[in-house]
Amino acid sequence: MKTLVINCGSSSLKYQLIDMNTENSLVQGLVERIGIEGSILTQKVEGKDKYVIEVNMHNHKDAIKLVLEALVNKEHGVIKSMEEISAVGHRVVHGGEKYSHSVIIDEEVIESIRDCISLAPLHNPPNIIGIEACKELMPNTPMVAVFDTAFHQTMPKEAYICPLPYELYENYGIRKYGFHGTSHMYVSQKVAKVMGKDIKDLKIVTCHLGNGCSLAAVKGGKSIDTSMGFTPLAGVMMGTRAGSIDPSVISFLVEEQGYTMSDIDELLNKKSGILGISGVSSDFRDVLSESEKGNERAKLALDIFHYKVRAQIAAYAGIMGGVDVIVFTAGIGENSIVTRKESLRGLEFLGFRIDDEKNDVRGKIQEISTEDSKVKVYLIPTNEELMIARDTVKLVKNN
Amino acid sequence: MKTLVINCGSSSLKYQLIDMNTENSLVQGLVERIGIEGSILTQKVEGKDKYVIEVNMHNHKDAIKLVLEALVNKEHGVIKSMEEISAVGHRVVHGGEKYSHSVIIDEEVIESIRDCISLAPLHNPPNIIGIEACKELMPNTPMVAVFDTAFHQTMPKEAYICPLPYELYENYGIRKYGFHGTSHMYVSQKVAKVMGKDIKDLKIVTCHLGNGCSLAAVKGGKSIDTSMGFTPLAGVMMGTRAGSIDPSVISFLVEEQGYTMSDIDELLNKKSGILGISGVSSDFRDVLSESEKGNERAKLALDIFHYKVRAQIAAYAGIMGGVDVIVFTAGIGENSIVTRKESLRGLEFLGFRIDDEKNDVRGKIQEISTEDSKVKVYLIPTNEELMIARDTVKLVKNN
Repeated sequence: MKTLVINCGSSSLKYQLIDMNTENSLVQGLVERIGIEGSILTQKVEGKDKYVIEVNMHNHKDAIKLVLEALVNKEHGVIKSMEEISAVGHRVVHGGEKYSHSVIIDEEVIESIRDCISLAPLHNPPNIIGIEACKELMPNTPMVAVFDTAFHQTMPKEAYICPLPYELYENYGIRKYGFHGTSHMYVSQKVAKVMGKDIKDLKIVTCHLGNGCSLAAVKGGKSIDTSMGFTPLAGVMMGTRAGSIDPSVISFLVEEQGYTMSDIDELLNKKSGILGISGVSSDFRDVLSESEKGNERAKLALDIFHYKVRAQIAAYAGIMGGVDVIVFTAGIGENSIVTRKESLRGLEFLGFRIDDEKNDVRGKIQEISTEDSKVKVYLIPTNEELMIARDTVKLVKNN
Repeated sequence: MKTLVINCGSSSLKYQLIDMNTENSLVQGLVERIGIEGSILTQKVEGKDKYVIEVNMHNHKDAIKLVLEALVNKEHGVIKSMEEISAVGHRVVHGGEKYSHSVIIDEEVIESIRDCISLAPLHNPPNIIGIEACKELMPNTPMVAVFDTAFHQTMPKEAYICPLPYELYENYGIRKYGFHGTSHMYVSQKVAKVMGKDIKDLKIVTCHLGNGCSLAAVKGGKSIDTSMGFTPLAGVMMGTRAGSIDPSVISFLVEEQGYTMSDIDELLNKKSGILGISGVSSDFRDVLSESEKGNERAKLALDIFHYKVRAQIAAYAGIMGGVDVIVFTAGIGENSIVTRKESLRGLEFLGFRIDDEKNDVRGKIQEISTEDSKVKVYLIPTNEELMIARDTVKLVKNN
């Protein structure tokens, strides 16, 4: 059976069609500038030319219609008719406290996702639009919602309750939710499989380092803590996001320097992190290259990034009572040799050594610790789409 | 020689007179409600009755005048004349980036402390008032400023630069400064002495847990990181302070719930932490007692507090490349047996075990790890006043 995985952003849509008999991704596509002048769809199929359609798309329904056309396109597509798509899995950012697992989408589920809009005002609305557009175009195809927050719903209260008046949790749902859950779940399950171990016996620190960065402490297969919080702003520093900072900085900037809250939001989400410190770029590769050329602030940005990841790995080893395996994944985690090395520097007392030759690798499954390391370190490429497709198939079959 | 140590708050003044030949504190005193109806001075001298003076004090000069009278009081005092006070050491909260050590106070120093007012608007002004009052009343007595921030000025950039646009550091001095420096310095030096080790060879995590709480990573005698930040709000959660939180919570409360910045300041500084979660009290003893009676939220507040301290200890072990000794100090650290035990639970993989019998102790120097522990754990009562007096004497002698 073939499963379509859809990830809707505010003006974009990523998709994959996955053959679940082989777990191979048949096609990867991206629609950009939905509702903006110059909309464009780009679809890749292995062994075929890149397929690009430039046509104005007014909304997500237009986009999904075009995606379906691209999939069945005689020359560039991979299926003969829409009937071959047996299910659709939607990535949904925020499932609040209601969803600790993926769920078959019905009206009630859509309402619950709507209820979480105040917690994820940028993300949940396009997710809902994507779901509703699919529903209209493929009314008979079962759909599943896979939540970014779900995997972290196993956190204990001591990890998720904020050090604020408890009423803020009860009245407004202010707590740590955590994000990137699908990725943390995928790589933790995958590393256990690769090691030939039962995940129930493992203490894993997963480092999802990409555009957004989060770490998770996965004990016995369950997330017991993660570095993002109420929103994806918290935790370690990222490309443009600050991560956690002294909250007084906000009062200082507002009260002493005349910042508005909207300035603050933009500052912390768009102008901070690697971009803010380096003054160069939010792209890790640019900053790395500038640092190699001797740019002091580019070097400082990388040093701080690695320092924060290092401290977070150690903290998670601490709260799990030790660690058996550390996993790097996502854009930076999979591709930056220096990040894996530097984020682990000084942590060898935890029980590993890095094999520099093995670490000289990008984007494939690889143990990078030495053979005699008691604690293992792995690079595991993430695959959120496959995880979404797996959950989708499982739920649809059981239904 | 006898040294007077003075710690001025906005409406209070703490003092000690220390005989620096023996390092004994001859007298401890507290003036409260300065400038408010019902001012009161309370002075304790060992072996003598408590001495209480209730007389209106309009300002810190009035207060210091009364302190000097109490010190020379025939019945309740400990010296015959003011001339016996050979130097005065002032605790100053914020020395900015200028002071990495204590300093003899002259006009330039006072100006520099004034320059730091924007960084510590509640603390530096009373510190200056206290210095100026002393200067007027004891114009010929040398005075020294000992800064709460000074010990942490050895932090590397990767620890103190915030993940924000670098210009905020350059233009407004937004960075991590750290506080409780005198205490972290004192207990780290003391524990090395007690262990008979050279502090240069030690990696120490110091846990100052009192009304305010901060941890520090002290490597080779130098602070290389600490949990408080730009202000004393950051880091682990405290009695009423939140510590570090997802900064988006502030935007959410302001934009969605109508909080003002002044509500936010009060929320994070006065209504959060142990008080906010427990709903009971900011006093650790009250919360402990409620928790023992079965109050779930009191228990949760303690669990979260211990959890955060635990994670921070592990993070600091991480950034130092391991740890040789962990020190607990200040009100909670010295007196809460359960806090020492719970903050270390699960961290035994670092190389220690706690001896429950040894840990059954309050307020005195004590190793609480088992004899065969590779990593040591100590209770070391802090003594910021003695540290201030030591710095004062050293500088005055060298001058």
